[in-house]
Amino acid sequence: MKLNIALLAGDGIGPEVIDQAVKVSNAIAKKFNHEINWTPALTGAAAIDAVGEPYPDETHAICEAADAVLFGAIGHPRFDNDPSAKVRPEQGLLKMRQKLGLFANVRPTFTFPSLIDKSPLKRERIEGTDLIILRELTGGIYFGERGRKDNGDTAFDTCTYTRAEVQRLAKKGFELAMTRSKKLCCVDKANVLESSRLWRETVQAMEKEYPEVEVSYEFVDAVAMRLVQWPNSYDVMITENLFGDILTDEASVISGSMGLMPSASVGEKAKLYEPIHGSYPQAAGKDIANPLATVLSAAMLFEDFKLVDEAQAIRDVVNKSLAEGIVTEDLSEGGKAYKTSEVGDWLAENI
Amino acid sequence: MKLNIALLAGDGIGPEVIDQAVKVSNAIAKKFNHEINWTPALTGAAAIDAVGEPYPDETHAICEAADAVLFGAIGHPRFDNDPSAKVRPEQGLLKMRQKLGLFANVRPTFTFPSLIDKSPLKRERIEGTDLIILRELTGGIYFGERGRKDNGDTAFDTCTYTRAEVQRLAKKGFELAMTRSKKLCCVDKANVLESSRLWRETVQAMEKEYPEVEVSYEFVDAVAMRLVQWPNSYDVMITENLFGDILTDEASVISGSMGLMPSASVGEKAKLYEPIHGSYPQAAGKDIANPLATVLSAAMLFEDFKLVDEAQAIRDVVNKSLAEGIVTEDLSEGGKAYKTSEVGDWLAENI
Ligand SMILES: CC(C)[C@H](C(=O)O)[C@@H](O)C(=O)O
Ligand SMILES: CC(C)[C@H](C(=O)O)[C@@H](O)C(=O)O
Repeated sequence: MKLNIALLAGDGIGPEVIDQAVKVSNAIAKKFNHEINWTPALTGAAAIDAVGEPYPDETHAICEAADAVLFGAIGHPRFDNDPSAKVRPEQGLLKMRQKLGLFANVRPTFTFPSLIDKSPLKRERIEGTDLIILRELTGGIYFGERGRKDNGDTAFDTCTYTRAEVQRLAKKGFELAMTRSKKLCCVDKANVLESSRLWRETVQAMEKEYPEVEVSYEFVDAVAMRLVQWPNSYDVMITENLFGDILTDEASVISGSMGLMPSASVGEKAKLYEPIHGSYPQAAGKDIANPLATVLSAAMLFEDFKLVDEAQAIRDVVNKSLAEGIVTEDLSEGGKAYKTSEVGDWLAENI
Repeated sequence: MKLNIALLAGDGIGPEVIDQAVKVSNAIAKKFNHEINWTPALTGAAAIDAVGEPYPDETHAICEAADAVLFGAIGHPRFDNDPSAKVRPEQGLLKMRQKLGLFANVRPTFTFPSLIDKSPLKRERIEGTDLIILRELTGGIYFGERGRKDNGDTAFDTCTYTRAEVQRLAKKGFELAMTRSKKLCCVDKANVLESSRLWRETVQAMEKEYPEVEVSYEFVDAVAMRLVQWPNSYDVMITENLFGDILTDEASVISGSMGLMPSASVGEKAKLYEPIHGSYPQAAGKDIANPLATVLSAAMLFEDFKLVDEAQAIRDVVNKSLAEGIVTEDLSEGGKAYKTSEVGDWLAENI
């Protein structure tokens, strides 16, 4: 297979972790006889510095032309705590999601047996957790009308959803549930919000198309609780953009393997893969960041192109590196701490 | 002191737990020479059944005339999963908050040494946690314009805040921080939402009035993570209505003492006290529900009337009941499970 992949390394540790995912993907390509063409492009603070724009048109053109995008991380501390900053790295992220139509963010949370003791939760609470949150990514309050009135003394944001937006996300949820344990949880705040009532009634109407899927409906506040209490009671969850933002992050820390969690964002055509961790500016340039989440994001990429053995080979070598302690300092626990680049080299060699 | 307290028992286990808080409060009144007049009033599903309205005008008049309101719980399963229900218990709650002007919801999360092992978190993560979330309760997306367009295929909700709304909530936050460790965390989503940018700039402008308070600003998704990872790193937090809904519930489960957590909702004049747990319909009428959260809510009530010794006496007797195992089945762990009413009697006798 021939794959054209746009490479958006971004800010902070982005470039370093992306490098390792490229090494590993190239090793996969060699072993399984694929051809990968990588096209780097600017994004985030790096793009603001270079061309004054966090998601330049040229970058968009490269992403659109590619079969998939591999993304590092964006964000820089100099933009934080400055509500008046005119251009922000995050705007690039939102623009990219919208222009590429990446309406579904796929966020798995699972555990690695060897890392379970790193979880803030007790072992019996977290063991067996294997859930996926599908977060709607191009609608809701992130993209609704917003502004000021009364000389700036009143601010408003609008959360809008259409039935079609809910349907396409929910469809992915039902389909994913069919490949897993056939349990789907729709997370909303239908006791207060009209948009949530639209979500709930739309999903309810779709239930008959998937008679095998058992659907439950839960309020977002209740889910925020149960995710901490019994995360292993969830399987596939679907939710709107803002709730998804909060819940996927909450879910990411419960496994104790936040530095290892990959993600995908997909649209009708576009596909983007990225680690869920941020740009971690304190570690940038030090060759100490954990590259495994980005490497596992590459595995999700291969899998979405039906290259299942390739994806499995990556997961296997990651498990092997964990078992043999070929890990960066965040996981080394008194053992040897390998450099980011050393972990990448080891993974590529052991493919 | 003479106190007129409106008694809104509500649904499910509400009446049972309220009864115990009344017993304990009456014992306090006797011991400290106060006079309490209790005026019961209807709310929730109980009020819908009786008069077709979850927060009837008569109930509002009783609450307005009272010095404070003691509230049980509302909600009934027959209203869940029915997006089309015209009248819902929750509407009563929202109407009550708005009509009484209860703009600040005060939600402490703390640990009881004897219950720490009930926390889903590891001991070292939860030990020492003692935080208070101040949730704005009468603004934001809960009360903004909402509706449908396009023949019902588009739904919208509006989140609106004014500077004055942010200021009055933030003022409470700063004042509370001054009585504690002088740390205040403002939780928002200022990298996306205009209303959050108003929150952040308003709080930033107030910093100079409270030079001793160290203020931090965090995004709601990051807080959802850190609350699970290092809850003991927080002290006083302020946030808007919807974020507060999610985060206060998330915080409530980390201590392992959810059934014991009290809360207050206050306005310029009105004051309301309630357990944070729900109406727990499965347990209704069985005399098995844990009354301690409601009893501790009564302690918050006394404290807000500067009756500090009275509040402390309640907390002391609650601690004593925990130490001596005079507890309901949720806490009895193989020991004797006392009835709701027995726990209330014991507390009242031991005041
Ligand atoms: C940076 C921010 C705009 C973004 C979001 O809220 O979507 C981030 O938190 C995420 O979840 O990818
Ligand atoms: C019942 C519901 C409307 C309410 C809310 O969301 O405010 C509840 O969850 C709460 O937190 O008191």
